[in-house]
Amino acid sequence: MPHRHGHAASIRIIEVGPRDGLQHETAIVSTEAKVSFVNALSRTGVTEIEAGSFVSPRAIPQLADSDEVFQRIQRMPGVVYSALVPNERGLERARAARVDKISVFAAASETFSRRNINCSIRESVERFKPVVSGAKRDGMAVRGYISTATHCPFEGPVRPSRVVEVMRQLLDLGVDEISLGETVGKAVPRHIRFLLDAVRPLTVPAAFSLHVHDTYGMAVANVLIAWEEYGIEAFDTSAGGLGGCPYAPGASGNAATEDVIYALKASGASVAGDEWMVVAAAKQMEGILNHTLPSRLSRVSHIHPSCEPVP
Amino acid sequence: MPHRHGHAASIRIIEVGPRDGLQHETAIVSTEAKVSFVNALSRTGVTEIEAGSFVSPRAIPQLADSDEVFQRIQRMPGVVYSALVPNERGLERARAARVDKISVFAAASETFSRRNINCSIRESVERFKPVVSGAKRDGMAVRGYISTATHCPFEGPVRPSRVVEVMRQLLDLGVDEISLGETVGKAVPRHIRFLLDAVRPLTVPAAFSLHVHDTYGMAVANVLIAWEEYGIEAFDTSAGGLGGCPYAPGASGNAATEDVIYALKASGASVAGDEWMVVAAAKQMEGILNHTLPSRLSRVSHIHPSCEPVP
Repeated sequence: MPHRHGHAASIRIIEVGPRDGLQHETAIVSTEAKVSFVNALSRTGVTEIEAGSFVSPRAIPQLADSDEVFQRIQRMPGVVYSALVPNERGLERARAARVDKISVFAAASETFSRRNINCSIRESVERFKPVVSGAKRDGMAVRGYISTATHCPFEGPVRPSRVVEVMRQLLDLGVDEISLGETVGKAVPRHIRFLLDAVRPLTVPAAFSLHVHDTYGMAVANVLIAWEEYGIEAFDTSAGGLGGCPYAPGASGNAATEDVIYALKASGASVAGDEWMVVAAAKQMEGILNHTLPSRLSRVSHIHPSCEPVP
Repeated sequence: MPHRHGHAASIRIIEVGPRDGLQHETAIVSTEAKVSFVNALSRTGVTEIEAGSFVSPRAIPQLADSDEVFQRIQRMPGVVYSALVPNERGLERARAARVDKISVFAAASETFSRRNINCSIRESVERFKPVVSGAKRDGMAVRGYISTATHCPFEGPVRPSRVVEVMRQLLDLGVDEISLGETVGKAVPRHIRFLLDAVRPLTVPAAFSLHVHDTYGMAVANVLIAWEEYGIEAFDTSAGGLGGCPYAPGASGNAATEDVIYALKASGASVAGDEWMVVAAAKQMEGILNHTLPSRLSRVSHIHPSCEPVP
């Protein structure tokens, strides 16, 4: 895939702010503002942007206008634009919206699966079957999310063997990549190691993405060990840390794109995306959402780079 | 040292909120509120509390009442109460205040030394000589701070050999322990490893404390590798993440005590201090300082522990 900065970055950043971020914000953002946000993110150099969701507008009113968002964004060559797709109706909409990649979403915890998508894990996988085959027939890539990969907000700690089981089923359906979602944000490197030790044998490192949350402040530590110790090279993050935490209003949710990019670059990695351009893109949303961004870098962007030289 | 929870915790938490935290807040906090804050912290189980500073009240008006704070706090048996001491006049005040431990503060960067304490590194060490010997004669323990241990806000990256040089001089003076201050908050584990590789040969692991900042969101990652890879067992942290960043108003500064305790406990360490009691203590300051706390745990304390079982 051509990279706009002229060299292949080893680490891919999957920017989920426009979907996972805005979905968990209470404010309803205008289509105009979403389009402008996605366009700004497209210019940051990130690899992929999850720009919408084709679930029922009744279920997630924040993203009811995803069809229109996809219609109006300016697509940057080399950037992958993806969306969530729960069923065949959603797949039709994704096809019409010309998304590059769809995502199906399963959980590793039965209770979370029932509460989040109203069916058992097995039923969800069954439901994804025609979606995945249909998407692949149409040349769309498919990502499989596995949420609650270490902890469930209802069941507590989740055994890695549960994740292995679901992952095997998704790979059997033909998904191209797996995003491991640490939904609750309580995991520390120890838990991520247990998880990655268990799932690593199932596929190649390049087929994994890690989707961690910063609710307990552990996101960066988890990203760094996943890269340093397991060679994971794709991370789902949200510009500005947008998204909050559905279980704790006011808490930080998604790992912030700029904090993760900073951490990886400062650690010597080659990363797709400019952290300060991501901050600038996220700042567009600060006024609209009426709260300050939870990311750390967004709070020091005004002193950068004049005051503190980059090492 | 007897520990109130009935067993020796392997990791010591040096709570610096009442000093380093309040020193970098713009609001002036009443003596009453400071005393109440220290008393609440004393009940959390942390090992040590840096409760004040005996620098010139003109230099740091926020802490001008340290003498009175020390007079009025209720001392918890087993907790060490410490204070910053810049010179012999400060030592007299520390003695009168019956502090258990004094801290002298040097830097690894000449520019920072001149801007922060208005003298060269060599001059600062000279100035500490009678302070350290006087303190030890009176039975007080002595900590030596070395700030800008990886990055300087004025000079940029700092070579570990500069830290080694200053540390050797402080150890020669007879200080009992060294706190390595990552002042700017830009360091990632790679930088902490360079630093610890260089300074480790100079003394035993038990004589080190790591003092990191969360300005760029790297605090927890740095603490975890220092413990996991180097056996560092003392960390300077600030309840609630109080303290901001002197170079970036509104940014987070000190590593938050509760986030660090959570990270270490969840990683399997035995840590002195209860993270949720620390949050409660820090919350006392939220109204007084008129801003929300930057720590991550402080934002989810209202859903804990009912919603999310501890692993």
